[in-house]
Amino acid sequence: MVLHYPNGRKYQGNTNVKKEEKKLNKQNSYSNRGMTLEEDLNETNLYYRTHNIAVIHKKPIPIQIVNVDYPSRSAAVIKEAYFRQASTTDYNGVWNGKYIDFEAKETRSNSSFPLSNFHEHQIEHMKSVVQQGGITFVILRFATTDEIFLLEGKILFFYWERMMNGGRKSIKKDEIIQNGHQIPYGLHPRIDYIKKIQELNLL
Amino acid sequence: MVLHYPNGRKYQGNTNVKKEEKKLNKQNSYSNRGMTLEEDLNETNLYYRTHNIAVIHKKPIPIQIVNVDYPSRSAAVIKEAYFRQASTTDYNGVWNGKYIDFEAKETRSNSSFPLSNFHEHQIEHMKSVVQQGGITFVILRFATTDEIFLLEGKILFFYWERMMNGGRKSIKKDEIIQNGHQIPYGLHPRIDYIKKIQELNLL
Repeated sequence: MVLHYPNGRKYQGNTNVKKEEKKLNKQNSYSNRGMTLEEDLNETNLYYRTHNIAVIHKKPIPIQIVNVDYPSRSAAVIKEAYFRQASTTDYNGVWNGKYIDFEAKETRSNSSFPLSNFHEHQIEHMKSVVQQGGITFVILRFATTDEIFLLEGKILFFYWERMMNGGRKSIKKDEIIQNGHQIPYGLHPRIDYIKKIQELNLL
Repeated sequence: MVLHYPNGRKYQGNTNVKKEEKKLNKQNSYSNRGMTLEEDLNETNLYYRTHNIAVIHKKPIPIQIVNVDYPSRSAAVIKEAYFRQASTTDYNGVWNGKYIDFEAKETRSNSSFPLSNFHEHQIEHMKSVVQQGGITFVILRFATTDEIFLLEGKILFFYWERMMNGGRKSIKKDEIIQNGHQIPYGLHPRIDYIKKIQELNLL
């Protein structure tokens, strides 16, 4: 029996179903197990681009280049460089005329999502995006249970402020379940966050 | 005597005025001479962000990291990496709810702008952005005369197609003057492209 949400969407949240899916995926060349969240999102964004659904890219890793070697007749080689802290989020682009901006993080914790995954700069950036009328959110993955949630910027800001005011340094999983939106894994695309945004009618 | 455009904007296009400005700037700590186009745009984007006008960043340079050293007690050092070709444009962000996406290039030529400054991937990316309802353009600088033009994506596509169909491999400066929009240098911000977009009422 296939259960459907009132909106006609297939019910996919059941743990047994997920376990079955996992088993299937192990035997399946389409498997996304073993994939990182980043790989899943890159595949999703590629799907969006090739199907003209959205144009969203992961930004390159910010690097401070110190020393570059220019061997004759071959490509320049960076010999010394350092990772810099990102001042923005990792993903951005355009969907349906709207600006999309998000960060994706995962945790091994089962009970909460540590806010140390985000930096002050990123939160400030996301607030500026909201101010300019963009859509911003985070995609959170609980790695041990392989659950994905979309949490709107304004909700993240709430928990960030709570921490800044001396409150807990993480968001409880219960709070994420209550105030976030689970995104079921799919095959193509793997993490259909645009569909979720559409359903939520953000903005 | 200060001339004004009908919209109240100070007239800044006159060559003699520009020469005077250059002279002044040489003695002036606010000088932007000697600044690269990238620095001018970074300063402009910083101005936009601090004044809540727009949230636009330059993307980090795309790098292929091959070898990273992790010395104990100190930061990871990238020991071998290579520059990759960008598959998108360098700048993007949000202004007034709208997605902004552009590339900036300069030439030493006085008569034309070589299309070799752009890659097929970037043109394809910009076309996809237009399809999704985003605003895309290029900022072109003629270095020897220090003139800046904004050229809308659709105009760039036209000249790109002309080249792909066997036509000239550059855009004549006359064509840029006729179909593009000059942006006068300012002090704060230095290259006020958002004002130009507003005037043009793109989208």
